[in-house]
Amino acid sequence: MAPVRQRDLPYGSAHSLSHTRQWRRGVVQEVTPWGVLDLGPGYIEPALLPVGVIRDAYARALEEYGSAALGYGHNPGALPLRAQLAARATAQGGRPCGPEHVVVTAGTSQALYLLATSLAAPGDTVLVEALGYDLGQRIFRDCALRPRRVAMDESGMLPDALDRALAEGAPDGAGARGRVAFVYLTPTHHNPTGATMPLERRHRLLQVAAERGVLVVEDDAYGELVLTDDPAPSPSLAALAGYRGVVRLCSFSKTLGPGLRLGWLVTDPALAERIASHGLFVSGGSLNHITSLAVSGLLADGGYDQHLGALRSLLRQRRDALVGALREATDDRIRIHRPQGGFFLWLQSDLGLGEDDLLARAEGAGVRVAAGRRFGTTQVPSVRLAFSFNPPALLERAAHRLGTAWSSDPPGHQIGVTS
Amino acid sequence: MAPVRQRDLPYGSAHSLSHTRQWRRGVVQEVTPWGVLDLGPGYIEPALLPVGVIRDAYARALEEYGSAALGYGHNPGALPLRAQLAARATAQGGRPCGPEHVVVTAGTSQALYLLATSLAAPGDTVLVEALGYDLGQRIFRDCALRPRRVAMDESGMLPDALDRALAEGAPDGAGARGRVAFVYLTPTHHNPTGATMPLERRHRLLQVAAERGVLVVEDDAYGELVLTDDPAPSPSLAALAGYRGVVRLCSFSKTLGPGLRLGWLVTDPALAERIASHGLFVSGGSLNHITSLAVSGLLADGGYDQHLGALRSLLRQRRDALVGALREATDDRIRIHRPQGGFFLWLQSDLGLGEDDLLARAEGAGVRVAAGRRFGTTQVPSVRLAFSFNPPALLERAAHRLGTAWSSDPPGHQIGVTS
Repeated sequence: MAPVRQRDLPYGSAHSLSHTRQWRRGVVQEVTPWGVLDLGPGYIEPALLPVGVIRDAYARALEEYGSAALGYGHNPGALPLRAQLAARATAQGGRPCGPEHVVVTAGTSQALYLLATSLAAPGDTVLVEALGYDLGQRIFRDCALRPRRVAMDESGMLPDALDRALAEGAPDGAGARGRVAFVYLTPTHHNPTGATMPLERRHRLLQVAAERGVLVVEDDAYGELVLTDDPAPSPSLAALAGYRGVVRLCSFSKTLGPGLRLGWLVTDPALAERIASHGLFVSGGSLNHITSLAVSGLLADGGYDQHLGALRSLLRQRRDALVGALREATDDRIRIHRPQGGFFLWLQSDLGLGEDDLLARAEGAGVRVAAGRRFGTTQVPSVRLAFSFNPPALLERAAHRLGTAWSSDPPGHQIGVTS
Repeated sequence: MAPVRQRDLPYGSAHSLSHTRQWRRGVVQEVTPWGVLDLGPGYIEPALLPVGVIRDAYARALEEYGSAALGYGHNPGALPLRAQLAARATAQGGRPCGPEHVVVTAGTSQALYLLATSLAAPGDTVLVEALGYDLGQRIFRDCALRPRRVAMDESGMLPDALDRALAEGAPDGAGARGRVAFVYLTPTHHNPTGATMPLERRHRLLQVAAERGVLVVEDDAYGELVLTDDPAPSPSLAALAGYRGVVRLCSFSKTLGPGLRLGWLVTDPALAERIASHGLFVSGGSLNHITSLAVSGLLADGGYDQHLGALRSLLRQRRDALVGALREATDDRIRIHRPQGGFFLWLQSDLGLGEDDLLARAEGAGVRVAAGRRFGTTQVPSVRLAFSFNPPALLERAAHRLGTAWSSDPPGHQIGVTS
């Protein structure tokens, strides 16, 4: 695939950070402090968000659908979008998927909230990976569910560990409070480790879940951000299971922009219908109607795939730039897990520094990273680096700063000079 | 105020119904059968939705905020929108309101779901009006809450009845399952009765709630649709309470269009912060970010108020046309409650026909209305008519059809001729 340069893309005018810094506070969720190279959050760099494409998509949806884009939307989501998403799922997963398998959501966070409050009851246990999306677990806890960690290795959750956890049941034994509501995991381009679960493991995990009769919630927010040409990514758990017993959560937040608040779930038609027949949908209709129709147009005319192709290219450049510079700049006692997709590098350290030290030294050098323990239990000091939020040159600079900061000498005032 | 004609408004091109009927299925929530005059749903007529205004608003938000409109939004909602909404609340309610009182929601249905799942627990009771928004109650029931009706009269919920209900507690006595989570009511332009609660009643009701220590959830979806010039509408319960102990739910669904899925709540800052600190917000950011910024621009430049003024004028014409034609066409044994605002007329019948008969005869005459019992317990046979969904001429035609259908003679084939 030919390299894509950022200026070739139909992205919006790049406001300089200094210009926008002030008003961004109170508008966006988080603003990086001045001068910091931020490899912390799982955000796309704003300059990669397709501002012009989205503007045109809203205009076209309002032109095409007129006032129907402003009315109450069809409860499970507008059919044109669900049909597009089902066709993609069929093509990617190899299992026939129709609009009846799809419910449009207002993003994966909203979908997790919905599942946590409609398919689980307060006190229920949710089985999660030993390391996993911390804010997903926060949603569960804030819904009075109890996340319980299941052991994983570099390929993801261990089927035998899942089997044991399900055999044991919830910590306080039988009864309604002890019920396991579902298993939540990210088998593809895992957050934070970047791991993708091999096909054999997927089959085995699904077999365990089916035998134990537990629902699997598959977080596939990064699923489309494949950064390899070969091998083809594994089919989703949902597709492998023929959509039975799995709810796959997908999102446009990591591709078109989280501010759209648009996602979708894929599951068997009976469960899809049950979900979309909740009063929430019957009262308000589709969860994000006008935006559904806008994005539907981008799926139909190839604009989404064009953007996705460009985004993958840029992310691949970024991943490779960061991995290359880190390998050069750091000791071989830093193990770098190069992912096949998504946003994240996972670093494990044998430097003799704890996570606190790794973070403090990085921060001292003007680089923000995410502590491994944010995501669960780490065996060795670990950090997560996002390569999605900065262009290659800044990622290389961050790598050099980290190399110096994590060297055996304590970081000093020379950092400013070497960077 | 000078009358506003529909063609003066900057609304989108009116697709003819016959042209759009086919593709609307699967796009919007409900499509009226061909030839039926639909006074059933609480929808705005599609032709009154400001398609062009919304298109320009998205384009401007993306121009003004660039990629920040596509990023994760500030958790409680973008500050520009919350500041605008707070200023409106201050002006309307007479009590100072700041952005810290406001949380942006994805519409009132989403807000009800959020409150039902975060401020209540399964098994809790919610006190509701004897007649009230049926789908709100469906959300509560689907969240395993138990709506319990409190007596009302033509001015709304009776404070003494509320006091008794709170004194009695929940039906099955003490304990967690018996807790009353909150009181839910619509004091302004009530759905379905159209009633607006007088000021004195508002004070008394708030006093009871404060003394009993119960939270009040005020559904104010129709609050801005004031169809009188005088007297000024009563301040919201939230404003009268100084925002303490009340959550006021507001929406753009009845003004700009439900497909936007945009609303907001107003409450005291401590509760607002508690709501917006749930994992749902921490993970996904503002609940409907890009649309918040689009609508924020319309509030800032007066476009929203201009639209609202025009909409009020048109709704007033419609209400008056329907009331006038019904008075002419029906027996004086049909009592017509003329509302001060909102979308609905409430009709009570002493014709000797039950609600089933009223509905069947209306349907036979090609008019769809909503049965009173959908909303709770009716003392006499009642129906709700929406004047929001059809222009005056069609409302007049519907009134004449209803007059004929509800006359003592059973409706025959002549209906087609007389209409």
